[in-house]
Amino acid sequence: MPLPEPTITRLPLYLRCLDRLHESGEVAVDSQTLAQMAGVGAHNLRKDLAYLGNLGTRGSGYDIVHLRETISSILGADRTWNVAICGVGNLGTAFAKYLSSTQDRFMLTNLFDVDPQKLDTTVAGIRVLHNDQMGARLIEGGPHLGIISTPPESALDVARLLASYGVRSMLNFAPVHIDLGPANLVRNVDVGLHLLMLSYHEML
Amino acid sequence: MPLPEPTITRLPLYLRCLDRLHESGEVAVDSQTLAQMAGVGAHNLRKDLAYLGNLGTRGSGYDIVHLRETISSILGADRTWNVAICGVGNLGTAFAKYLSSTQDRFMLTNLFDVDPQKLDTTVAGIRVLHNDQMGARLIEGGPHLGIISTPPESALDVARLLASYGVRSMLNFAPVHIDLGPANLVRNVDVGLHLLMLSYHEML
Repeated sequence: MPLPEPTITRLPLYLRCLDRLHESGEVAVDSQTLAQMAGVGAHNLRKDLAYLGNLGTRGSGYDIVHLRETISSILGADRTWNVAICGVGNLGTAFAKYLSSTQDRFMLTNLFDVDPQKLDTTVAGIRVLHNDQMGARLIEGGPHLGIISTPPESALDVARLLASYGVRSMLNFAPVHIDLGPANLVRNVDVGLHLLMLSYHEML
Repeated sequence: MPLPEPTITRLPLYLRCLDRLHESGEVAVDSQTLAQMAGVGAHNLRKDLAYLGNLGTRGSGYDIVHLRETISSILGADRTWNVAICGVGNLGTAFAKYLSSTQDRFMLTNLFDVDPQKLDTTVAGIRVLHNDQMGARLIEGGPHLGIISTPPESALDVARLLASYGVRSMLNFAPVHIDLGPANLVRNVDVGLHLLMLSYHEML
């Protein structure tokens, strides 16, 4: 049974915090501390972790290595995923460089664009191909995650094109809301949301 | 009294959904529908909106215009904020163009970098100045929100510099966790988190 959506959005937060705790040599963490680090309510954290089975050790808190492994495995963070980026402007280029600098869980395998100036250039070690070549690259290359960083006016067409070549899960960074229905997951990422949280803080 | 952190992270989501509903001509929305659009639990939504006072009309749901105005005002989204971007690489340039294309709530006023190649160039209509000029620009120009899109190794120094010139609230997109203590809010934005939510979906 799939986890509830709010839990899915919080598990990656916990994983990042556990990464940081592990790096600083901690071995256990209590739910209050982890909730505070992740910026979520302790009640939600305990509810989320309850979905993952019996993880806690009363008194000493959660075992960091074990909790990290459990969440990693649920999120699919213990394996490598191919990523295709569509739209190699400033944002797409920034993501390409980010992915090639982190290397661990997400591997940049394809870059697509339609701008003749960009085609056949190399960004972060990957050659930029025309959208026309998506089919061959994505169908033969196995499952991919998609990142859409095109201008807003072409984002929906690109999302549909990706879906037609078997890409089920996408992040859309174009400032337009895309919904392809239940068969495909499109996560619309909106940097404006983060700015709104900042302005709230400024109002206090 | 400040709202709880989880509520602060969800209010912008509701605002975006209400923007979309308003654009498509809706006048009222029930909590189930709004919760589903925002991807949060209906229980959380009702709890969040309860902090905002008595908003609901039983039966017909929430009045969209009124709810939008209330949330806008709480988030400070009904006024204009100055934004300074530090680090004008691919990511900083993408943000600069995004901000100048949206215009409404956040106005790009300053761009800073230290790369001689970038200084005095113009991006999205704003001249790139050296970090040395931050003080004069930010102190005289009134309160700013800060966006950090530098390489990770300089992000902390830039955050401290911004704080020293009175910038209280920042978004950090550099892949390094920054915490300046309680006097300054640094929101660390991690695109890897979104990829982790995608990979979970692929595992289903």
